[in-house]
Amino acid sequence: MLILTFTGRALCWLIQMPLISAEELTAWSATLLQAVNFPRPAARLVAESLVAANLRAVDSHGVQLLPYYVEQVERGDMDPTAEGRVVSASGACLLYDGANGPGQCVADACCTHAVQLARKHGMAIVTARDSNHFGAAAYWGQKISVAGMIGIVMCNASPIVAPWQGKEPRLGTNPICMSVPGPWLLDMATTTVANNRIFKALVNGEESIPAGWAMDCEGVPTTNTETAIRGLPMPLGGYKGSGLAMMVEILCATLSGGAMSTEVGGIRIKGKPTRISQMFLAIEVSRFMPVVEFTRRIEWLAGTVKSSAPAKGYDEVLVAGDPEWRAEAERLRSGIPLGGGTCEALEQTATRLGVAPPPVKMHTI
Amino acid sequence: MLILTFTGRALCWLIQMPLISAEELTAWSATLLQAVNFPRPAARLVAESLVAANLRAVDSHGVQLLPYYVEQVERGDMDPTAEGRVVSASGACLLYDGANGPGQCVADACCTHAVQLARKHGMAIVTARDSNHFGAAAYWGQKISVAGMIGIVMCNASPIVAPWQGKEPRLGTNPICMSVPGPWLLDMATTTVANNRIFKALVNGEESIPAGWAMDCEGVPTTNTETAIRGLPMPLGGYKGSGLAMMVEILCATLSGGAMSTEVGGIRIKGKPTRISQMFLAIEVSRFMPVVEFTRRIEWLAGTVKSSAPAKGYDEVLVAGDPEWRAEAERLRSGIPLGGGTCEALEQTATRLGVAPPPVKMHTI
Repeated sequence: MLILTFTGRALCWLIQMPLISAEELTAWSATLLQAVNFPRPAARLVAESLVAANLRAVDSHGVQLLPYYVEQVERGDMDPTAEGRVVSASGACLLYDGANGPGQCVADACCTHAVQLARKHGMAIVTARDSNHFGAAAYWGQKISVAGMIGIVMCNASPIVAPWQGKEPRLGTNPICMSVPGPWLLDMATTTVANNRIFKALVNGEESIPAGWAMDCEGVPTTNTETAIRGLPMPLGGYKGSGLAMMVEILCATLSGGAMSTEVGGIRIKGKPTRISQMFLAIEVSRFMPVVEFTRRIEWLAGTVKSSAPAKGYDEVLVAGDPEWRAEAERLRSGIPLGGGTCEALEQTATRLGVAPPPVKMHTI
Repeated sequence: MLILTFTGRALCWLIQMPLISAEELTAWSATLLQAVNFPRPAARLVAESLVAANLRAVDSHGVQLLPYYVEQVERGDMDPTAEGRVVSASGACLLYDGANGPGQCVADACCTHAVQLARKHGMAIVTARDSNHFGAAAYWGQKISVAGMIGIVMCNASPIVAPWQGKEPRLGTNPICMSVPGPWLLDMATTTVANNRIFKALVNGEESIPAGWAMDCEGVPTTNTETAIRGLPMPLGGYKGSGLAMMVEILCATLSGGAMSTEVGGIRIKGKPTRISQMFLAIEVSRFMPVVEFTRRIEWLAGTVKSSAPAKGYDEVLVAGDPEWRAEAERLRSGIPLGGGTCEALEQTATRLGVAPPPVKMHTI
């Protein structure tokens, strides 16, 4: 206590954090996007999807993406007014052309189609090509699962990952998401960790990272943070991660006729459209059993898995979705922290576009 | 050459290997199964699926399983004469009850249903409950992909894997398989390595195993082989592997109404039926593009991935399926080696059932 009192002023300065409510952040984000010509409904949709990720503490897929989206539009690499179209529809299969519009608009339309088709056939697959970054896949998986369906969502991504045994990038972090009517939600990249975990280690002055995270530029596994930064992220568990990334690439891009592997751009790649492909698969649970029964079975399964005694060093066992739901409850209550340079980046973008800065409140935490 | 001549006799004894052609091994395996009451078509089907795995050098899923299957039947834990039935069919969704019959018979029926339904709806999902071990998932994925479809096959398995952060087994090695009309084929457990890789290290006297393979019985990662044997296999890449295993568990067992997690038995668990669940998903490629075009796109993707310069220490980059196709070409030519105690185990089982031993030929290799 004495120490706290003594260093109180300096400490307060160090741990003051910009906080903002989800509602205010959504409204502000939509205004920012409208300033670069996003139509009002598209701006609102994109803002909601990003803030949903912030609420779940998946900040890598939250509003920190806004400056990238804005720059893509300014460079002409994404068209915020583009409207996608159905290329073909046959049975439970639908092919969608995103027309280089916002990924969230493409995903929203595709989820709607997937749910409608699954109502008719029991299941459906919708693939989209020439799309853009759609935020976190979990947002779209959940849009399908709230309809009483299993939602599986995947997308390919900028080629920054070398295949196993290789040292040149050919695949993206290609995430796999599955959402169900019940307390379990998976959304994971097919690399061991997201690239920004390695950057964070560097920023925090950590000299080494855990084994399995990264390879050097010769494709040799490394635990040296600086070497990893100049190298490549590691496919999840080695060759199996490369296999899963290819699975995603095939279901999204090969099947949709979209850009594959080295043809794909990215939000940080200037002068070419991203041309990402996405896949939305819906399975109507009630074709197998009543949704309430399925939900009870998910609860039983999650409970049984969590009933395992924790490993040494841990207090409890969690299943996919648990950490994010806890964060969401906390951030709905206390607000969303905009740390790690995000607030400054948003302010700079806002200033440049003549938009007021995000209405954050500084909180001492 | 001199050294070879000098030690020739001892060397020959050390590296003599029982070899057998796929055709002979299939016929012999079917005979063995008929001796424990498998009907002739079921015996042939099971034999073909196992020998297909041996041809691909996936020996863990080959004829070494026969003694386990035989013992399951002898104990009354599996009924080789049982015939599964369709529980419900609605649109593109079908639920199948395996009735504790051979997993291969269940899988064969389910693949047929999946392909038929996908012809009608463009895609289909078939889930089976109360099934048994079906060999390698790749065999069934390929049965779907030869029909010009993407085949996705999963199954749950005996609970021998602790969830991430846990130390008590709750999930199986729960494999994910995807097969396509083209040169790429994924079939992988959602643990870092199959358990028998760790046993092999022990048998070979290797004191340590690579990081990421296993945990000790307190759930702490270990590289000590003996500690690993007494411990648990590691979910692929940690928490993501647990997430993938749950995804498989849900799509197979939760959705089919089958046994989940600790309810599941296994081929090495005596006195209870295995009650495995399986899922077969088919997507008709021609709903998106002509199959020949899709195959060309797979070839381009695989070629582009393989064009990456190899990492230090490797000669080339491979994609999923490559090692197994190479092995298949070699073993079709030279025969299937039955090493590592498999030949002796098969001979013992055969002798006990009054069946002639497998007609292997000893080859010096």
